[in-house]
Amino acid sequence: MVQDLAGKVNVEQLAGVFAAALTPMDEGLSVDHGAFAAHCRRLLDAGCHGLGIFGTTGEANSLSADERIVALEALVEGGVPGERLLPGTGSCALTEAVRLSRAALEIGAPGVLVLPPFYYKEVGDDGLFRFFAELIERVADPRLRVYLYHFPRMTGVGISLPLIARLLEAYPGVIVGTKDSSNDRERIETVCREFPGFHVFAGTERFLLDTLRNGGAGCISATVNVTSRQARRVHDAHEAGREGEAAKLQEHLTSLRATIEAFPQIPALKSIMGLLTGESVWSNLRPPLVPLENGQAGELMSHLRDLGMIQEDS
Amino acid sequence: MVQDLAGKVNVEQLAGVFAAALTPMDEGLSVDHGAFAAHCRRLLDAGCHGLGIFGTTGEANSLSADERIVALEALVEGGVPGERLLPGTGSCALTEAVRLSRAALEIGAPGVLVLPPFYYKEVGDDGLFRFFAELIERVADPRLRVYLYHFPRMTGVGISLPLIARLLEAYPGVIVGTKDSSNDRERIETVCREFPGFHVFAGTERFLLDTLRNGGAGCISATVNVTSRQARRVHDAHEAGREGEAAKLQEHLTSLRATIEAFPQIPALKSIMGLLTGESVWSNLRPPLVPLENGQAGELMSHLRDLGMIQEDS
Repeated sequence: MVQDLAGKVNVEQLAGVFAAALTPMDEGLSVDHGAFAAHCRRLLDAGCHGLGIFGTTGEANSLSADERIVALEALVEGGVPGERLLPGTGSCALTEAVRLSRAALEIGAPGVLVLPPFYYKEVGDDGLFRFFAELIERVADPRLRVYLYHFPRMTGVGISLPLIARLLEAYPGVIVGTKDSSNDRERIETVCREFPGFHVFAGTERFLLDTLRNGGAGCISATVNVTSRQARRVHDAHEAGREGEAAKLQEHLTSLRATIEAFPQIPALKSIMGLLTGESVWSNLRPPLVPLENGQAGELMSHLRDLGMIQEDS
Repeated sequence: MVQDLAGKVNVEQLAGVFAAALTPMDEGLSVDHGAFAAHCRRLLDAGCHGLGIFGTTGEANSLSADERIVALEALVEGGVPGERLLPGTGSCALTEAVRLSRAALEIGAPGVLVLPPFYYKEVGDDGLFRFFAELIERVADPRLRVYLYHFPRMTGVGISLPLIARLLEAYPGVIVGTKDSSNDRERIETVCREFPGFHVFAGTERFLLDTLRNGGAGCISATVNVTSRQARRVHDAHEAGREGEAAKLQEHLTSLRATIEAFPQIPALKSIMGLLTGESVWSNLRPPLVPLENGQAGELMSHLRDLGMIQEDS
């Protein structure tokens, strides 16, 4: 069993409420660096402890490795502290995962969030172990801290508990945590219990309080792009030992999440951001994603207004 | 209904028996350009009308776009005629699919085989249409001929018949065919019937004769790396109107395919190539793929020898 990994590595700052940040794009569907930095700064100001950038929500796999690296550098130039970022650096191509991970280290990110290679299906743990092992050996940088990104609904390739155990044994202090987007509360609890000291982020703020209570690190969630204040309140009430209040705030947060989940998530979030900020960058998504239809967008906003779920200033 | 697309475009050479070529890799898991060119020349000598390179079998998605482009150029320098290649140029990232497609045109490939973006699941035809439309508009080259790569078991994202119809209507003469790896004979027959003039390649030589009889273009298949002579005989018997002989040869070809299919396919094919050629490059696969275990490799070879399925010179 792995004990106190957190104590051995410099990732203490990677805990709490993280938005899986959206990536604003210009009319040509390229990353709008200025709008991206502004959005990230706004999320940090709104209470996010850190940001998962270039994850599923950030349309990372719809961008080339070069585009992701340039955007990473531009974020830091745009005033977003690298040490508060957990960049997604996975790729089906080992060589690209290596390049992306090195670029993340260069901007001072304390960790990287790595998808398994997701093209081939029905691959076994041996092949996945070998992918992560090669990645670590090739990056060859003592600063590397890897978070395993488990999102089987999207990848078709999951991170099993035996694989986590095997990687932790082979690379203690390098394999340090996970983002678990299984949407399976029991699995998240089990991972927290089986691997003490492992940094477990739930992939939805729906499980934020549960995960914190089970010793997990927090959540990294798409919807936190628009619920960061509410999520932070849950976190802070729990931290202060006000469990009754935390539970009540979690209930509200969960209902907010549920409202947004009824719509295609990334288009819905970009649509909300567009309405909140008046910025046109939020209408743009790389295919295969498409914007919400007008009717859907109106319906979503009316739900959110009725429920008082959108802060005018968020 | 689309008529006689084949007559309008310069892809007549893209028909018949195609191997989905394996990509040999050196010890460092980089493409071995010399061995790759030698393998491709050998396949053409063994009767392949053309080669699908950088498809699923070619571990394309395990390579970066740069690696694929450099290897494409090296193939042509290594004596493989660009006009006999149908390179896979798909990517989850639109910008990379554009770069890869342009590189394929530069080496004289008469067509490109394009996967749908395969990270996001549950995307609709609108998003997929938009991806292919953007690709075509951005490549902006009158030489572009796109084959739609349908492989839902691997991608989780299929090419529906309505999507084919919509793309054919929007881009006649550019959208010219498909590789259908559904392993669903009825679907392949339906596509042949619904879209006359559309170049339909079955993704397995199991359906080679059926597809030819239905007016399809042929097959592009992984196992043709080791069955090219046998597959070519089926094709030629059919072409010469010797249907009884073609059916008998197809039966033999199908049993060969079935034998290999019982093993993990890409590792099994690399293993067979290693035993046939004595070249060590065939032991290397990029993770998440892993070589066959020794026992498996021995069992496979013994099956193939017993069935007389391997030509000593192939």
